Parts: sequence; C-alpha cells; structure tokens
Amino acid sequence: MVLEFAKMEGIGNDFVLLDDMDGALGAMGYPELARKLCDRRFGVGADGIIMALPSETCDIGFRIFNSDGSEAEMCGNGMRCFAAFVNDRGLLSGTRFTVETKAGTIVPEIIEATQNGVTRVCVDMGEPILFPPKIPFDVDGDRAVSVPVTADGREYAVTAVSMGNPHAVIVVGRLTGDEPTEFGPSLEVHPLFPEKTNVEFVEVVSPSEVKMRVWERGAGETLACGTGACATAVATHLLGLTGREVTVGLKGGDLAIAWNEADNHILKTGPARLVYEGRVRL
Amino acid sequence: MVLEFAKMEGIGNDFVLLDDMDGALGAMGYPELARKLCDRRFGVGADGIIMALPSETCDIGFRIFNSDGSEAEMCGNGMRCFAAFVNDRGLLSGTRFTVETKAGTIVPEIIEATQNGVTRVCVDMGEPILFPPKIPFDVDGDRAVSVPVTADGREYAVTAVSMGNPHAVIVVGRLTGDEPTEFGPSLEVHPLFPEKTNVEFVEVVSPSEVKMRVWERGAGETLACGTGACATAVATHLLGLTGREVTVGLKGGDLAIAWNEADNHILKTGPARLVYEGRVRL
Repeated sequence: MVLEFAKMEGIGNDFVLLDDMDGALGAMGYPELARKLCDRRFGVGADGIIMALPSETCDIGFRIFNSDGSEAEMCGNGMRCFAAFVNDRGLLSGTRFTVETKAGTIVPEIIEATQNGVTRVCVDMGEPILFPPKIPFDVDGDRAVSVPVTADGREYAVTAVSMGNPHAVIVVGRLTGDEPTEFGPSLEVHPLFPEKTNVEFVEVVSPSEVKMRVWERGAGETLACGTGACATAVATHLLGLTGREVTVGLKGGDLAIAWNEADNHILKTGPARLVYEGRVRL
Repeated sequence: MVLEFAKMEGIGNDFVLLDDMDGALGAMGYPELARKLCDRRFGVGADGIIMALPSETCDIGFRIFNSDGSEAEMCGNGMRCFAAFVNDRGLLSGTRFTVETKAGTIVPEIIEATQNGVTRVCVDMGEPILFPPKIPFDVDGDRAVSVPVTADGREYAVTAVSMGNPHAVIVVGRLTGDEPTEFGPSLEVHPLFPEKTNVEFVEVVSPSEVKMRVWERGAGETLACGTGACATAVATHLLGLTGREVTVGLKGGDLAIAWNEADNHILKTGPARLVYEGRVRL
C-alpha cells in the first residue's frame, strides 16, 4: 500500500503526521509503523509519528509514538504540528479544537494560518507547580526562588519549577552555549532533586526576551524543551527579571510564553512547519 | 516553488534524487540546495543530493553534493540510486546507459527492474591495482598478499588492494563486529600506508560468500563501503579462499562482486531502493 504523509517540525523536533481517521493503519500496528518510518536512513526519518484519529470524547484524537516504537503521552512540539496538520488538511473546521491524548484533553489554537508552510499554534500548558515537595526539590519554604545549590564545587542560584516534570532554572550573565554539557550532568543528578531534574541556563536579554539552553533529564542537551521554556518564563518572572510575556530563544527556534495572571495558566505559542509531503510504500 | 524529489537508499547510504534536466535548480546553487535538503530535522534528510542533468558527451549527466554542500566526484551507492531513478522516471530508455560524472564516464546497467521499490544495478568498477607502490603500500614485490604487519603489538596478515583508494584486507576466523573500532584506528595510520588506508575485516563463509566490516579512512566505521567490498573480493580470491564471484555481506546490506577474468574488471551489483517520493517547498 502507498501511504500519504506530511513531514513537519516544531523548533527542531520532527514528526511524520498520518491521517488514520478510518483506522486502516491501526491494523498494522503503530509501534512497528513508527520504527519503520522514523528510521533516518531506511525510512522517512523523524523523532516520532503522530496519528490523527477519531475520538468519542473530543473533536479529534491524537496518538504519538517515538522512533523506538514506544508510545508517549503527549508532546508540545508534536501537538503544534498536529494542530497545523489538522488545519492544513481540513480535518476539522475552526481554529480551536479539543484533542484527546493519553495525557488528557489538550486545546490547541491556530494563532496564525499557514504562511510559507509555517503555522503558529498556541497550547495551554496548565499551571506551574512551585511548591518544592511537589517538584520535587528538597528545600524548605513555599517556593524555591534563587536557592543556593552547590555541585562539583560550584555554587548556583537555582529557581525550581515543575510543569509536570522538574526544572532547575539558572540565570547566567551571558550564555556561552557550553553550559548544558559542562554543568548539566552534575545538576541533573543533584541529591536535592530526588527524581533528578531538567536544567535550564538562561540569559536575560530584556524584560520580554530571554535565551535558554537546556540539559534534559535522561536525554542530555537538546535543541529545545517546551516545558523548560515555560519553567524559564515562570522563573525569570518570579526573579523580577521579565514580565508575564516573554519570548524564549532556544537552539531550535523561538517560543512565546505567556503566564496568565487571571487563571495562573501558561500559554505557549510556537511554530509548526510543513517540511514536505510524501508518499511511502509499505 | 514546490520541488518533486525521490528519496532513495543503497545499502544504507541515502540520497535525495532530483531531475534537473531543464537546469531550473542550478540557478539556486546546488551546494545550498544540498545543505538545505540534507538536514535531517529541518530538511528532507540524506547523505547527499544527486542531480540528473543533460550531458553533451554521455546519455545523461550526474552530479552529487554531500550534506555539507561539497561536491563529490562519484559514489557507487549513489550511482545505483541514480540509475534506478533514471529508469523509474523514464528519463532514458534502455537498461544500460553512459553517465557523465566528475570521475569520468560510468556505465551502470539495470540488472533487475524495480520490484517493491528495489532495483538491482550493476556498475563496472574498473581494474583493481595490486602493485604496492601504486596502492601505496611500502613493501617489496609485485603484490602484497598476506603480508605480516604489526600494529599496537598485534600482528595482522594484510592483503593490500587499491580500487582508486587503498584498502588493507584482513581475514579473521569469525567476526565479532568490534574489529573496526578496536583495530581500525591504528591500522588506518600505519606507516606502511603513506596515504593512510581503509581497513576491511573479513569472515569467509563459503567460496561464494564473505562477511565484511569496514573502517573507512577519515570516516571511521560505516555501514558499507563499495570499493572495500571490491577489494575484499579481490583479496579473498588472491588468497584462494573464494572464487571470482562472491557475495559480500555488509552491515547495510549485500553486494555481489564479480572479478572478470577476461578484462580484469570488477563488476559490483547491488540494490537501490525507492524509500518514498515527496514534494518540498523551497
């Protein structure tokens, strides 16, 4: 059979998007399909595959499988690509829709329709968690803002935020770009973070702009981390360095983060780009 | 503009194939096009791009650009993909045609037409060079067959063959797969090879079948090396271990090598597979 697909990327995270509204692909097994299509030499090549599926509880269903065939619950970059795909293909009408995922209902919104292949999509990321035991970060107090942490003989001022996963945000004067690989490994496994932590190194450019480099827990340095960008915006605001709206410049591209005062929710807006469309024989 | 392409691979070496018979793409610069399309996250993703072009001296023209934008003279795996592409698209009629490349005229032949996306293509690789000064390999004699070479305190029996580039072929009892990374680096730069050397580790399965793992000069271990497979077939035949026709099993797939007694030429036959076809916006 010949399968039509779209290849998309969101700030460097890339996916094969598939329309399986009629369930024809489910029969062959999504894990196997993911391993085959994600292979960068013998397949299409991607970080994962994302399926558009029917849903009984939402407007549409979303499932995402990593290149090793394992299923992920959700993925922010993937959700933007998914929303743009649904919009491009006309699978739904309207610019805001409810999406059923393994991590619950997500409501992406098309902020700017496709221009030169790029669609801007906003996703509600929920509320940040600041209470240290819930992060978890083993320090006293209601919040952990600029807490001194020593690792490998160096002292850091850590602001800890969870977006469902733990983040240690560290503001530096000027980023060299070497911080994640140089300081990330010892901070990731610091005993004050019993479940380990993601680590963000941040340069504040202005009250509405920061640059961020990330060391991801279990993954090392990556091009981008959506929850890390949210945690960074929260931390720099708590530190009085930025307003409630800030553009976070990552290695893979920019994300616009807004921390809504009224409902405490974080809104993350970023690009999803159609790289190409293809037909693959299976 | 929207560009139609084919994504193909030959035993793990992957390419974006483009029809530029009308010269429309040349204007935008092939090096830039290569860098853009070969990026595995922000582009299509490939080891290189290959252009089908008009030729004044041959049936068709071939140019290949690496992912960094540099131009290569020729590439065996790429030539098989090119021949299959020309055949699939009907750019030429007939199963054997002359191709103008920066390394001279190459004459690929379609051995088996496309089946499930796979085409088998034979390419004449010319004559092997056995005279040590021409390889270059600093030993006496007309040929270097099973010459003792000591590196890092270990002794190897090296058979040296050039296919335009130097190869040190070493027959082992049973391949573990670790040989390239374990022994390749010290052999690559051995002083008896003044221009360094590629290194092949070979297990003879039968007089018509060998397995080979390769350490490529300047590149390290790779999935496959076409000239290395030819050098291996020549070496195992000179050692009396195989006939003139042998299947060489590489990490990325199989190549069938025939050393023609009449004209001393090496014929290399292998697969070229259409992975998918796509449309990309530029």
